[in-house]
Amino acid sequence: MRPLIAIDWGTSSLRGAQLGAEGQVLATREFARGILSVPPGQFAAVLDELFGDWMQAPGALCLISGMAGSRQGWQEAPYCPCPAGFAELGQHLLWLQPGRIALVPGLSCLGQDTLQTTDVMRGEEVQIFGALQLAGQDSATLVLPGTHSKWVQVQGGRVTQFQTFMTGEVFALMSQHSILGKTLDLTGAFDESAFLQGVDQSQQAGSVLNKLFAVRTLGLFERLAAVALPSYLSGLLIGEELHHPRASTPAEPVLLIGNDALTLRYTLALKHLGVACQSHGPEATWAGLFALASASAC
Amino acid sequence: MRPLIAIDWGTSSLRGAQLGAEGQVLATREFARGILSVPPGQFAAVLDELFGDWMQAPGALCLISGMAGSRQGWQEAPYCPCPAGFAELGQHLLWLQPGRIALVPGLSCLGQDTLQTTDVMRGEEVQIFGALQLAGQDSATLVLPGTHSKWVQVQGGRVTQFQTFMTGEVFALMSQHSILGKTLDLTGAFDESAFLQGVDQSQQAGSVLNKLFAVRTLGLFERLAAVALPSYLSGLLIGEELHHPRASTPAEPVLLIGNDALTLRYTLALKHLGVACQSHGPEATWAGLFALASASAC
Repeated sequence: MRPLIAIDWGTSSLRGAQLGAEGQVLATREFARGILSVPPGQFAAVLDELFGDWMQAPGALCLISGMAGSRQGWQEAPYCPCPAGFAELGQHLLWLQPGRIALVPGLSCLGQDTLQTTDVMRGEEVQIFGALQLAGQDSATLVLPGTHSKWVQVQGGRVTQFQTFMTGEVFALMSQHSILGKTLDLTGAFDESAFLQGVDQSQQAGSVLNKLFAVRTLGLFERLAAVALPSYLSGLLIGEELHHPRASTPAEPVLLIGNDALTLRYTLALKHLGVACQSHGPEATWAGLFALASASAC
Repeated sequence: MRPLIAIDWGTSSLRGAQLGAEGQVLATREFARGILSVPPGQFAAVLDELFGDWMQAPGALCLISGMAGSRQGWQEAPYCPCPAGFAELGQHLLWLQPGRIALVPGLSCLGQDTLQTTDVMRGEEVQIFGALQLAGQDSATLVLPGTHSKWVQVQGGRVTQFQTFMTGEVFALMSQHSILGKTLDLTGAFDESAFLQGVDQSQQAGSVLNKLFAVRTLGLFERLAAVALPSYLSGLLIGEELHHPRASTPAEPVLLIGNDALTLRYTLALKHLGVACQSHGPEATWAGLFALASASAC
């Protein structure tokens, strides 16, 4: 394998890793230089400025995943339609410098039946294939928590279906912009007990639109302390996400991919609901890009 | 009956009506002088400035409902616990000037069993009793759409239970502060077809956290025009509210209370789901305050 520079270029941050011939991580870098901070036409210059030294290695190959391949990014790499696996991603790489720098396309999932099943991802597909490699599986249910949480079905090494949940963004909107903002005290530490109360509440009958408002009255009537309410709200929203049918009976442990703080919460909630899971962090991205480079015989 | 000055003093607006001896509306006034715009200690002065001429009628009585009775208002009128009817409201009037000016208390609903059933209202209780008077009923399911939509059960003239839904606020947050903001074109007119597509989608299995994100992909893939998306989103959220079990089989037509634009949407959605309804506007407030004044023999 040629030296691989693996890049995850997202909306708000830019992360890179220098990988050895066996996929081992030699060094990593992270910058607050997401695509929103890069003026049009300057992507090559930013990459060169921040990773140019790594790229000087003889035969270096650079694979870039994430929003850099979106319409607002370096160049649009059209979505690869599901079902899709390594082979399809490899065939759809968008070469910016032939043989040297390529964008990894995102995935799209276009349902025929309802309005609901249309969905897209960019960047997560690499983490998914990386986590499967690390777990030694070719079929799984995966969850990638975050601003826009993804639930993904993989069968025989191919993503067959996925759905995005606005969980993280709704949490942020509720705590920062809604009437709940006045009731929540965001300075407290994570409160596991309040979090699990929220998870329990989310599984009760009734609409989340009512349960969200009830967070305010819990505070007004001092049934929960203001510092515990953010954890309760978090449990309510994550629980609502987990309540959807797809999450009910995955055959294997669910594979979680994300940062420690978030995967901890999802692990607590899933275990509380009797669903086994296993977590992966940023290493899934590097493993995924390495596997893609290997499979594509770049 | 003495001349009644009926006042609905909310968070962002102040409305008043001068009522005759039979409850007929002689005149109304509305000002952008909600409680948030009134400095502490200035409520009496603002009332006098805007309604002092009406108050000079011999024997005039002024009843004030709404957020003026909250902790942030003129003076806190403690919530009256459910079940509560006219008699309980009348007993809990908070007299600011004995026999002349009183605050109507809000209602609280304190469930024993779950965290969810704790709820409060201020101002809606008057509209509820007014609409019941106008409809000639003493039992009903009522819906008061708005930023915080209320579903209310009344039996034998008493509010037995109610729930608040954050429907209007979530619509505003989604269109103004979320990632959907970039996809929605808010300049279009109300699109009934897109609205009903949203209502239909809301009744499908799955979480609203996913259905909300899907609004974005509907736009991305041009399955709905950007100008139609706000109506679709509105249908999705109102439908989510209507989907909750309490709404499924009310015995009588649901009584809707609100402005024309909102009650039109709820009427469309309820009829689409096979639920009969009947609408009332601001007259419900005046009828409620008049009935309260009569019942309390003020």
